[in-house]
Amino acid sequence: MSKGKLTGADVAQHNSRDSCWVIVHGKAYDVTEFLPEHPGGQKIILKYAGKDATEEFEPIHPPDTLDKYLDSSKHLGEVDMNTVEQEEKVADPEEIERQERIKRMPPLQACYNLMDFETVARNVMKKTAWAYYSSGADDEITMRENHSAFHKIWFRPRILVDVENVDFSTTMLGTKTSIPFYVTATALGKLGNPEGEVVLTRAAHDHDVIQMIPTLASCSFDEIVDAKKGDQVQWLQLYVNKDREITKRIVQHAEARGCKGLFITVDAPQLGRREKDMRSKFSDAGSNVQATGGDAVDRSQGAARAISSFIDPSLSWKDIPWFQSITKMPIVLKGVQRVEDVLRAAEMGLDGVVLSNHGGRQLDTAPSGIEVLAEVMPILRERGWENKIEIFIDGGIRRSTDILKALCLGARGVGIGRPFLYAMSTYGQAGVSRAMQLLKDEMEMNMRLIGANKIEDLTPSLIDVRGLSSGHHASVPSDTLTLRAYDPLQAPRFSEKSKL
Amino acid sequence: MSKGKLTGADVAQHNSRDSCWVIVHGKAYDVTEFLPEHPGGQKIILKYAGKDATEEFEPIHPPDTLDKYLDSSKHLGEVDMNTVEQEEKVADPEEIERQERIKRMPPLQACYNLMDFETVARNVMKKTAWAYYSSGADDEITMRENHSAFHKIWFRPRILVDVENVDFSTTMLGTKTSIPFYVTATALGKLGNPEGEVVLTRAAHDHDVIQMIPTLASCSFDEIVDAKKGDQVQWLQLYVNKDREITKRIVQHAEARGCKGLFITVDAPQLGRREKDMRSKFSDAGSNVQATGGDAVDRSQGAARAISSFIDPSLSWKDIPWFQSITKMPIVLKGVQRVEDVLRAAEMGLDGVVLSNHGGRQLDTAPSGIEVLAEVMPILRERGWENKIEIFIDGGIRRSTDILKALCLGARGVGIGRPFLYAMSTYGQAGVSRAMQLLKDEMEMNMRLIGANKIEDLTPSLIDVRGLSSGHHASVPSDTLTLRAYDPLQAPRFSEKSKL
Amino acid sequence: MSKGKLTGADVAQHNSRDSCWVIVHGKAYDVTEFLPEHPGGQKIILKYAGKDATEEFEPIHPPDTLDKYLDSSKHLGEVDMNTVEQEEKVADPEEIERQERIKRMPPLQACYNLMDFETVARNVMKKTAWAYYSSGADDEITMRENHSAFHKIWFRPRILVDVENVDFSTTMLGTKTSIPFYVTATALGKLGNPEGEVVLTRAAHDHDVIQMIPTLASCSFDEIVDAKKGDQVQWLQLYVNKDREITKRIVQHAEARGCKGLFITVDAPQLGRREKDMRSKFSDAGSNVQATGGDAVDRSQGAARAISSFIDPSLSWKDIPWFQSITKMPIVLKGVQRVEDVLRAAEMGLDGVVLSNHGGRQLDTAPSGIEVLAEVMPILRERGWENKIEIFIDGGIRRSTDILKALCLGARGVGIGRPFLYAMSTYGQAGVSRAMQLLKDEMEMNMRLIGANKIEDLTPSLIDVRGLSSGHHASVPSDTLTLRAYDPLQAPRFSEKSKL
Amino acid sequence: MSKGKLTGADVAQHNSRDSCWVIVHGKAYDVTEFLPEHPGGQKIILKYAGKDATEEFEPIHPPDTLDKYLDSSKHLGEVDMNTVEQEEKVADPEEIERQERIKRMPPLQACYNLMDFETVARNVMKKTAWAYYSSGADDEITMRENHSAFHKIWFRPRILVDVENVDFSTTMLGTKTSIPFYVTATALGKLGNPEGEVVLTRAAHDHDVIQMIPTLASCSFDEIVDAKKGDQVQWLQLYVNKDREITKRIVQHAEARGCKGLFITVDAPQLGRREKDMRSKFSDAGSNVQATGGDAVDRSQGAARAISSFIDPSLSWKDIPWFQSITKMPIVLKGVQRVEDVLRAAEMGLDGVVLSNHGGRQLDTAPSGIEVLAEVMPILRERGWENKIEIFIDGGIRRSTDILKALCLGARGVGIGRPFLYAMSTYGQAGVSRAMQLLKDEMEMNMRLIGANKIEDLTPSLIDVRGLSSGHHASVPSDTLTLRAYDPLQAPRFSEKSKL
Repeated sequence: MSKGKLTGADVAQHNSRDSCWVIVHGKAYDVTEFLPEHPGGQKIILKYAGKDATEEFEPIHPPDTLDKYLDSSKHLGEVDMNTVEQEEKVADPEEIERQERIKRMPPLQACYNLMDFETVARNVMKKTAWAYYSSGADDEITMRENHSAFHKIWFRPRILVDVENVDFSTTMLGTKTSIPFYVTATALGKLGNPEGEVVLTRAAHDHDVIQMIPTLASCSFDEIVDAKKGDQVQWLQLYVNKDREITKRIVQHAEARGCKGLFITVDAPQLGRREKDMRSKFSDAGSNVQATGGDAVDRSQGAARAISSFIDPSLSWKDIPWFQSITKMPIVLKGVQRVEDVLRAAEMGLDGVVLSNHGGRQLDTAPSGIEVLAEVMPILRERGWENKIEIFIDGGIRRSTDILKALCLGARGVGIGRPFLYAMSTYGQAGVSRAMQLLKDEMEMNMRLIGANKIEDLTPSLIDVRGLSSGHHASVPSDTLTLRAYDPLQAPRFSEKSKL
Repeated sequence: MSKGKLTGADVAQHNSRDSCWVIVHGKAYDVTEFLPEHPGGQKIILKYAGKDATEEFEPIHPPDTLDKYLDSSKHLGEVDMNTVEQEEKVADPEEIERQERIKRMPPLQACYNLMDFETVARNVMKKTAWAYYSSGADDEITMRENHSAFHKIWFRPRILVDVENVDFSTTMLGTKTSIPFYVTATALGKLGNPEGEVVLTRAAHDHDVIQMIPTLASCSFDEIVDAKKGDQVQWLQLYVNKDREITKRIVQHAEARGCKGLFITVDAPQLGRREKDMRSKFSDAGSNVQATGGDAVDRSQGAARAISSFIDPSLSWKDIPWFQSITKMPIVLKGVQRVEDVLRAAEMGLDGVVLSNHGGRQLDTAPSGIEVLAEVMPILRERGWENKIEIFIDGGIRRSTDILKALCLGARGVGIGRPFLYAMSTYGQAGVSRAMQLLKDEMEMNMRLIGANKIEDLTPSLIDVRGLSSGHHASVPSDTLTLRAYDPLQAPRFSEKSKL
Repeated sequence: MSKGKLTGADVAQHNSRDSCWVIVHGKAYDVTEFLPEHPGGQKIILKYAGKDATEEFEPIHPPDTLDKYLDSSKHLGEVDMNTVEQEEKVADPEEIERQERIKRMPPLQACYNLMDFETVARNVMKKTAWAYYSSGADDEITMRENHSAFHKIWFRPRILVDVENVDFSTTMLGTKTSIPFYVTATALGKLGNPEGEVVLTRAAHDHDVIQMIPTLASCSFDEIVDAKKGDQVQWLQLYVNKDREITKRIVQHAEARGCKGLFITVDAPQLGRREKDMRSKFSDAGSNVQATGGDAVDRSQGAARAISSFIDPSLSWKDIPWFQSITKMPIVLKGVQRVEDVLRAAEMGLDGVVLSNHGGRQLDTAPSGIEVLAEVMPILRERGWENKIEIFIDGGIRRSTDILKALCLGARGVGIGRPFLYAMSTYGQAGVSRAMQLLKDEMEMNMRLIGANKIEDLTPSLIDVRGLSSGHHASVPSDTLTLRAYDPLQAPRFSEKSKL
Repeated sequence: MSKGKLTGADVAQHNSRDSCWVIVHGKAYDVTEFLPEHPGGQKIILKYAGKDATEEFEPIHPPDTLDKYLDSSKHLGEVDMNTVEQEEKVADPEEIERQERIKRMPPLQACYNLMDFETVARNVMKKTAWAYYSSGADDEITMRENHSAFHKIWFRPRILVDVENVDFSTTMLGTKTSIPFYVTATALGKLGNPEGEVVLTRAAHDHDVIQMIPTLASCSFDEIVDAKKGDQVQWLQLYVNKDREITKRIVQHAEARGCKGLFITVDAPQLGRREKDMRSKFSDAGSNVQATGGDAVDRSQGAARAISSFIDPSLSWKDIPWFQSITKMPIVLKGVQRVEDVLRAAEMGLDGVVLSNHGGRQLDTAPSGIEVLAEVMPILRERGWENKIEIFIDGGIRRSTDILKALCLGARGVGIGRPFLYAMSTYGQAGVSRAMQLLKDEMEMNMRLIGANKIEDLTPSLIDVRGLSSGHHASVPSDTLTLRAYDPLQAPRFSEKSKL
């Protein structure tokens, strides 16, 4: 293995399936033998054969990836980057427009709610990053329903309650926190911000908010833990690896590093098809666009597929006792979607469940967390189990009214994911911080307006859930001819501009 | 203190936080010490430090404000306004377009209903004034639901009733009035019309309609009372001040000046977040738009916050007997939103409640008054209490059919706010008068068409409320791909224009 | 009174309120004294003082109007029309465009359904005529609901029925007819076609369809009866005049001339406010557009008000026996809107009712006929009264499926109005005839497809009315921010057009 | 009959109703006497009198048509095609644009779901072909409802099931197949692809999917059977001919050639009115566009009518035993739409039913198959008949989630039609193959996500059908004035592009 610096020309010779070298962060690697094993497929690597792959590699691989997965004999050492030919980027008109929009971005103070960050993000994020974050399964019906389901629940506010003092701090899995939401786990933070998930860690600290660390983070687990300050609380989200030894190592490491909760994802035996994500990747392919036939289906599956091949689809209830045996952290199932499974989790002594459909990214027309919650809680109360297990929900939460509705129904807390990604991808830590502050401002206001001083005051009596009972509702398609024939009423007309 | 007139140059020297003078209506004031106490924040005053602040000051402060709240030692005396440099206004293209639209305004007779005034107002009002009047809480769902809830109630009209004579005069809180609606209290009338609330007083007189005087009027209370004529009836709307002595003084003064009802607002322990209003203020800020961080949240909260800091969030049921002890006026709670609170109000001997969500300006997804009314009345009737307490509603009323539905359900009367503001802001007193006349015309017509001669004929048998029972209803999000793929039917095509 | 022909100049001198002459169909009339009595107001006459008013007069007055209502002493005799100065019509750009559209009208065969005629009519009719025909009360919610209510009812078709022969002829009020719909009464036919209602008479004859003659026809009653052929059946629609002698004369004359049914309109004690109609008239006014104040309300009320001042709002159930005493024709109440009134009509021995809301032109949010029908029929059947009285409906019928749904529920027949007006206003008699034929074609087809050979086969078992039970349903207003933030899925993109 | 080749000039002389020759595939035919019998009407033939009709003839007549239906004496023999004058096609701007769009078609891999093929097809298919495939009855409400009805059903997914292995192969009518959908019968395949239905046969083979052969195929029955490979399974869809001998011959021939199921269409005693189809034909007519009158109705009825005049509208339950007597193939009724008829089919010993409304092409507001299924299955289970008869559905299936919902309710399998036509019309066999593969990919994914390993695991417990119980639901029409008056909330504004 050469110890003197390699040159770009050296690397460039190894540009084929037969001998494939790539440069990452100034070092060269021989990935020829690794090609068939790459979870994201060979094609994406071959695109960079003999070239610098850092930009593509960076957001979707934690920094310790190459050390972990590539034998040290394949680490070829440093490259003199001055000798590496710069890819001359073709001026992509979409990219030029995006750069122009970035220059004209609204100031942070013009964001008054969590949707505002999403609107800004849609305009300034890279197309593929936006597609990965914003996409959902199939027709994205569940993804959107997650939010609109909250609109079926209305308040029954109490008046003339002394609300001078409002306190919405609470306890989740035994830890105090300032407000009953947590930053839920989301993958690939560096797609939106070069620093990745540690940005969320810092903002969470400033607002005394709990952060759930994702298995598929762009930062390494330790980087995220290192970024916490004081007694800041973190939880671990876990995709269970086919190799249980790896899983065990991850869990016990997290516990050792102070994580206060283990959230096992159970709604993703296979990561979902997200067509917006797939389509955004597609145009990258460029070449052979006229090729046809079945095998094409397996390519360009978007970021989700590329990073998830290790997940074990055989995970089942039988595995739960094993998890209980390897850690003392409270264990929570993330992604429960029916009453029966909540009851089973309680019976098995689990500490909590997150009623979630994975942000609408897995199964389309899966129910929203808030609707499952409304079904679950009366049954738990009937059994006297409402304190036996903590119920969380995530999905579609954008306003403190959404949080309040969940808590009135009986949730212990709620997870919020995408909105903080959008805030982070647009305004960095300050954006995330403002997003959290906006929720706190709304929370204080709305606690007052429904007549509640503290979390314990939030009871089912404060909400009207009749709108949920009619199930999922689709109107009869309208007759387009009648719509076109109808001449709508006019508002009064302003007179014509004088032509003079 | 100088007695000779000050010059603009004198004032202009005091243009900083350290020494801050402002001119209002030709007089100078030293507000340096007052700065930190200003409910609307220091920033807005500092913008006018050393300058004439009249235009900004005028609509949001009653004329007696400076006398009341600023020690007379800070009143610096008159300014020779010829020496004050005129701010050269930058030609704002939006403002130029607005002025152009004002020139082309439709004639008053082209307004055939209350929505028409809103459409005209949206086009001709100043942006910030429009934003303050038209905004609602959060997503403005409740604000819009207030009107659309009426569409869930349909008539069951009676035929072959002799309706030659129709009389819709009625009695509210013991006073006769020509029609069962009143002008409800709305803040800051001078934003829309330089004369402010007295315009409403005059139109209300012409139509024998009751007016509720707002605490947050631009005109002073006495100006509004002075504007009434003959035995015209006025009520007082009250925001309860943290200092109960001030409250007592206000209430007893109102009673002394002839007010016939006291409406205590109970749905606003804190005035709502109205993002349309906040956003309209924002562009004013101008400078430091790139600033970030949490403290930004507290600025530019819109007009609502600026004027409401005195309101007491600790007001509670315990305070009610005190109110009953200080006045003989009938007392009505304004902003009741659930059955239990109506019953409690009746039990405490209150004279009425207004089922209201503050025009959708406070808590989003709070229920509409009309829906709460439909829940409340059967319970009151079951207890035989339907005459023990008068039930009013406000919110979303735009047509006489809306009024009729409320009365059929059992309301004594309804409040109408924004539509009269829009009429006043566009066509002045004549506009308000026409808006009232339109409602009367509709009322006569529609009483006939449902087969009712007088208010007593309006009973639940005349309406179908089944549409309310399904609660709040949101359709499943549609699949956008299918909508795009669908090729709608065509109407017959006109042939192409000949090119000759 | 001059016997020699008058000149235009003679007439033109009488152009004021003090002496007002007008020319109609080549003859001059002195209407000075008549001015205050004109049901449509003085203003519209004064516009033509001293001029030729024929074009305005024609469509809204039956030809015998002047003879009937103006004393013969005011008939001034013929005018030499060559001496009458032609109003030079200002080239109205809207009118020029309309003339252009008329030239490019689609051929009649391109109309495949009744909505197609409406679309063509909207483009080629005069603005005021279109506004009169197409308008409804207030927000036109009932007008549109009339049609969309049919979409809540779905079929439960029967298969494997021998449907080689399908016969949809039926009997209404004792008369055979080819298909269970009739042409219902609509006013002012000459607004759409210079020949007026006789066009409908002729087409009805060709298709063996019953025609209901309107009180407010543009043609005189006798003209319409004269136009019938053979044993063609006509009914009379009656607005009851305050002067019962006039009413008696009309009814007995109709019976003498062979009318087979008397339909007394009971949903119009006062003709509705139709803002589209009012607005279309308004721009005529032209002058004094800046005038303000209450009296403006009484002008420009549209055609509806102008022609209906004679209608008696005191008409009541007490009058029914009198009608039964003056005619042997079957008597039907037109415009019944609640179950109780159907039962009362049956009890009083009336022959039928039309469940109708006057095409949505009277009371907005009045229920659709089809929905009232679904409520009425089970109650009639429970009492064994389903054959005691014939139930008709009108409003919103556009497809034979609509007719079939009404008949399955239990209606004897349905009335169709506007679609034939639109067909008549665009393609004349051929248009009406095609519209009727299209309904027959659809009827044959759809009888087959639901498995019914004859009218008696149409029973409630063939339809699913569960959609009606949820009442009137309005979705929660959507949150516009979320809609804007959402990035819809994309269909595959076509590649860019090459720039070469 | 001339044996030497005819010339174009020879044929061109016979260009009238009196003597009408046409050329098809290089041969001339004398169709003078056949004219009045042509099911599609004389007009369309006369358009090609004396000319080459191949292009029009091809897609809507199987190749053996002329041999079967035209006496051999009318076969005039070959034509020297070099002597036939080429119709100079007028450059149709729509056609030029379509050709341009074809050049820019997205690559096949950019189609990620079945709707994508429809979108591409809409842009690249010939107008008349698109209209025939995509059209539905009347307002196309049922056609669209077929898909949107699936959105009323939501999942209740099971978690922590070992889903490493997923198997969705199943058995339909006794035959194993790889996935529980089949290619249902659709007419006129050559409109979309010059090779016609055999393209579907080949793709079905590649994916081990069953194909139902349509009576109205463009290819002859034998061509389609000849195209099958190995033990590929085909079924026969049958329109019953008025002449039962013909029917018998067809059925027995199909059985002899190996068909494994007979699907008798029972929802089409007459083929539906499809206005999109009719309108697309219309512009062809060109001439006499100003003609009016009733007879026009019978022309240009679209492709559907032209090809279906032989269908027997008298087919009834009485005929079923006869079918059972002439074949041993399992017999299935295709187009059942109510519970009673499913029970009757079971009682008569039929092997299956397809709950179907013919893709929304027959009766508008007929119920969707999925909704009838939800009604039928509980009743079958109550009687213990769930295995007595196989229940299929078709209509609106676009996603594997749709298939899964049908199977959870109790369907044995589902038919898919239009999506494969669109895939075939755009990308040929590769398109159909990819469409099938996409469904398989989705199926595997979604079986995992609901926690099911095999078809037997799909039970009603996995779905929530409450959304179906509210029947068909149409919202109250909105008031357009309010919508226009409402000023929607704004997202933060990007600053203006600098003009420099």
